[in-house]
Amino acid sequence: MSEVKKLSIICFSGDFDKTVAAFTLATGAAAVNWDVRMFFTFWGLNIIKKSKGRKPLGKGFLARAFNVLMGGRAKLPLSRLNFGGLSPGLMTGMMRRSNVATLEELVSAAKQLGIPLVACEMSMHILGIRKEDLDDNVPEVIGVATFLKYSEDAQVLFI
Amino acid sequence: MSEVKKLSIICFSGDFDKTVAAFTLATGAAAVNWDVRMFFTFWGLNIIKKSKGRKPLGKGFLARAFNVLMGGRAKLPLSRLNFGGLSPGLMTGMMRRSNVATLEELVSAAKQLGIPLVACEMSMHILGIRKEDLDDNVPEVIGVATFLKYSEDAQVLFI
Amino acid sequence: MSEVKKLSIICFSGDFDKTVAAFTLATGAAAVNWDVRMFFTFWGLNIIKKSKGRKPLGKGFLARAFNVLMGGRAKLPLSRLNFGGLSPGLMTGMMRRSNVATLEELVSAAKQLGIPLVACEMSMHILGIRKEDLDDNVPEVIGVATFLKYSEDAQVLFI
Repeated sequence: MSEVKKLSIICFSGDFDKTVAAFTLATGAAAVNWDVRMFFTFWGLNIIKKSKGRKPLGKGFLARAFNVLMGGRAKLPLSRLNFGGLSPGLMTGMMRRSNVATLEELVSAAKQLGIPLVACEMSMHILGIRKEDLDDNVPEVIGVATFLKYSEDAQVLFI
Repeated sequence: MSEVKKLSIICFSGDFDKTVAAFTLATGAAAVNWDVRMFFTFWGLNIIKKSKGRKPLGKGFLARAFNVLMGGRAKLPLSRLNFGGLSPGLMTGMMRRSNVATLEELVSAAKQLGIPLVACEMSMHILGIRKEDLDDNVPEVIGVATFLKYSEDAQVLFI
Repeated sequence: MSEVKKLSIICFSGDFDKTVAAFTLATGAAAVNWDVRMFFTFWGLNIIKKSKGRKPLGKGFLARAFNVLMGGRAKLPLSRLNFGGLSPGLMTGMMRRSNVATLEELVSAAKQLGIPLVACEMSMHILGIRKEDLDDNVPEVIGVATFLKYSEDAQVLFI
């Protein structure tokens, strides 16, 4: 374990509630000076996809179909009781009323705290997502070897 | 890594089967003298909510509605093949017949082994769950900073 | 943290996409000389069950029913957008076209890299799965104490 605490979060699920948990842990750790990185893979890529524009994202017909069905960060489903997509909005309202940071605020905080949001190369290949489909502030697309190198002395969570 | 092995389990999902896995790992580790804590957040709060009483738990209409829909520890769903809530009962029967500890027995064992069951403050705010809605033997409600402080030299699992 | 990096992956979910992620991390880590083990529990046991033969696997009626409903490695569902089991096939096609290793190729690679695929005793009891229901190359069935002993100086992921 190195002197500086490190936290690697693998954001796999892309569920609204799990994403809130991931960013809460990430920003909380960065606030107490841990060295934090977030790795987005599979459905988690929805969190860092571009939200603007009407052109469907992705390369190839199936990739585009999957991308349309999945939507972006504004349409993450709840892992339970999603009610056809109604619940994340309800929950965001509950977060506002409780003075808890919303997901958008958590993502902004992560950027301000300098937490690198890194995309997983292999799952981008599988899902046909290109670098230009991702948010402009996603600094890196990496492979599993780079991830392991970074994480070898970090706490690692799979969310 | 400290001399005494530490294990932090973040119980997020509140699924019956994942909860059985979490308590099996927790009690197994405590039995060999690891220092174990379990942190309950989001749907995982269902595991440590009061089971008695007819008054709906929670603060505010939406919170109450969510709480009624989620039920408590006796109604955790299976993460798969739940069949409208039939399967956890079937599985408990299979556990009894196999002489494997049931979930209730695992929770009792965790308490006897002195494993602290800790609730996450932020998700309680979001879901409108109050301290008095939780089991009387939940000792603490903590924030993410306290969790990180405890977990900095522990193995951490997100379940 | 020992000199040789160790990685313990608890394969709980048995979802197609999460299983791809687990084997990608496992084979990637083994390729850079980490000491990797994969522990299969609950739905994850589907990944290492025998795929051949028409006799239903499992001990007892309920166990057999669950086993038929779950299918084996060839029938793992996607954790999202499964479309009644259509999607894993589509995704395998997308993986082939992207020259990404398919799940079967990843499992073969894990075996070639000498990664032990270990089964969890307790969940086999609960689900009524016997040693002879598992792939012939599953070397060990272990309990939670053995798992913890191995994992005490490893990175641990719950997938």
